[in-house]
Amino acid sequence: MVHAKELELSTQGFSDILDITSAVEEAVGESRVREGLVNVAVIGSTASISTIEYEPALVEDLKEQLEKLIPHTLASRHSATWGDDNGFSHMRATLMGPSTTLAIADGRIVLGTWQQIVVIDHDNRARKRRVRIQVMGE
Amino acid sequence: MVHAKELELSTQGFSDILDITSAVEEAVGESRVREGLVNVAVIGSTASISTIEYEPALVEDLKEQLEKLIPHTLASRHSATWGDDNGFSHMRATLMGPSTTLAIADGRIVLGTWQQIVVIDHDNRARKRRVRIQVMGE
Amino acid sequence: MVHAKELELSTQGFSDILDITSAVEEAVGESRVREGLVNVAVIGSTASISTIEYEPALVEDLKEQLEKLIPHTLASRHSATWGDDNGFSHMRATLMGPSTTLAIADGRIVLGTWQQIVVIDHDNRARKRRVRIQVMGE
Repeated sequence: MVHAKELELSTQGFSDILDITSAVEEAVGESRVREGLVNVAVIGSTASISTIEYEPALVEDLKEQLEKLIPHTLASRHSATWGDDNGFSHMRATLMGPSTTLAIADGRIVLGTWQQIVVIDHDNRARKRRVRIQVMGE
Repeated sequence: MVHAKELELSTQGFSDILDITSAVEEAVGESRVREGLVNVAVIGSTASISTIEYEPALVEDLKEQLEKLIPHTLASRHSATWGDDNGFSHMRATLMGPSTTLAIADGRIVLGTWQQIVVIDHDNRARKRRVRIQVMGE
Repeated sequence: MVHAKELELSTQGFSDILDITSAVEEAVGESRVREGLVNVAVIGSTASISTIEYEPALVEDLKEQLEKLIPHTLASRHSATWGDDNGFSHMRATLMGPSTTLAIADGRIVLGTWQQIVVIDHDNRARKRRVRIQVMGE
């Protein structure tokens, strides 16, 4: 049994972090899958999916940390060649990866209490962002 | 066909790295799935799943490298706000991701000879840690 | 329905980045799966799978960035113990992870226009590299 859903989100860029847990839970509920897997993947090459304890202090911390690891001011061949100044966004995205897969048990996503599913948009501007949720199981 | 198993592990924190390959192989064996996927996911927001050549020198190297990238002494809003001093643990976990999915062929996990599945507990204390193994296939 | 394929690639090491999107699409086409998941995993502990906008400037940028994060000249216990000088390769691989899972819709991998699937070989020499493609769905 395969069930799919796509989210369209408004994001602000510069590693904007959005909690999509309830939308993913809703998709799992609609699928009627009781035991299986849910895959969450962002469409595009400048964003990532991961999990985090979604609280405002930590969200700021992570954005600051990504700035330290790969600054948005980083000169890059990509930005120089294409003039879109988002080389740093691509590199953050490739390092963190585009998707996360988690278990479904008794119709619920297996997550810790303080563990939320997030999309992180690394791009350098506000944009619409599509996220694919794919549920498989029985 | 979906088969699930949960491990409970004792971990030491500060990116303690434990080899769980044989436990995952055992879960795959119990499932009787011959061809499919196995998803391994850690429950909680301060640990990660990945693969590594599990030998003591490299295990030490990786812990040291994580200290360089995101030191455990890093001041964070999360630690300041909640007083649990584990902001660094959360950031390491979100960067590395909570899960890994691998193929099953002929009833075995497809891995290299020097490639083991590990849970990395980034938290700042010893704790019990639950890992979910989800096997799907035919 | 489960369908598997293995690629054998010639890689150059030092985070050599190869676009394998068309090979993965071919495997998905052969599987006749219309809706499901495709898992791409590299066999071995010194390489990674992710997605990137595969264009030469960005490919160079990412290699340079990985050199900054974990230099190939980094002294490591692993290299000192085993004499193979590839401790940095292992650490890059474990940080980025060995696999990526994406959705299949209408028989095609769900990807952005500028988003390609890549294997990144972090090892310190040219080698043959095996990549497992596992397709599951209906």
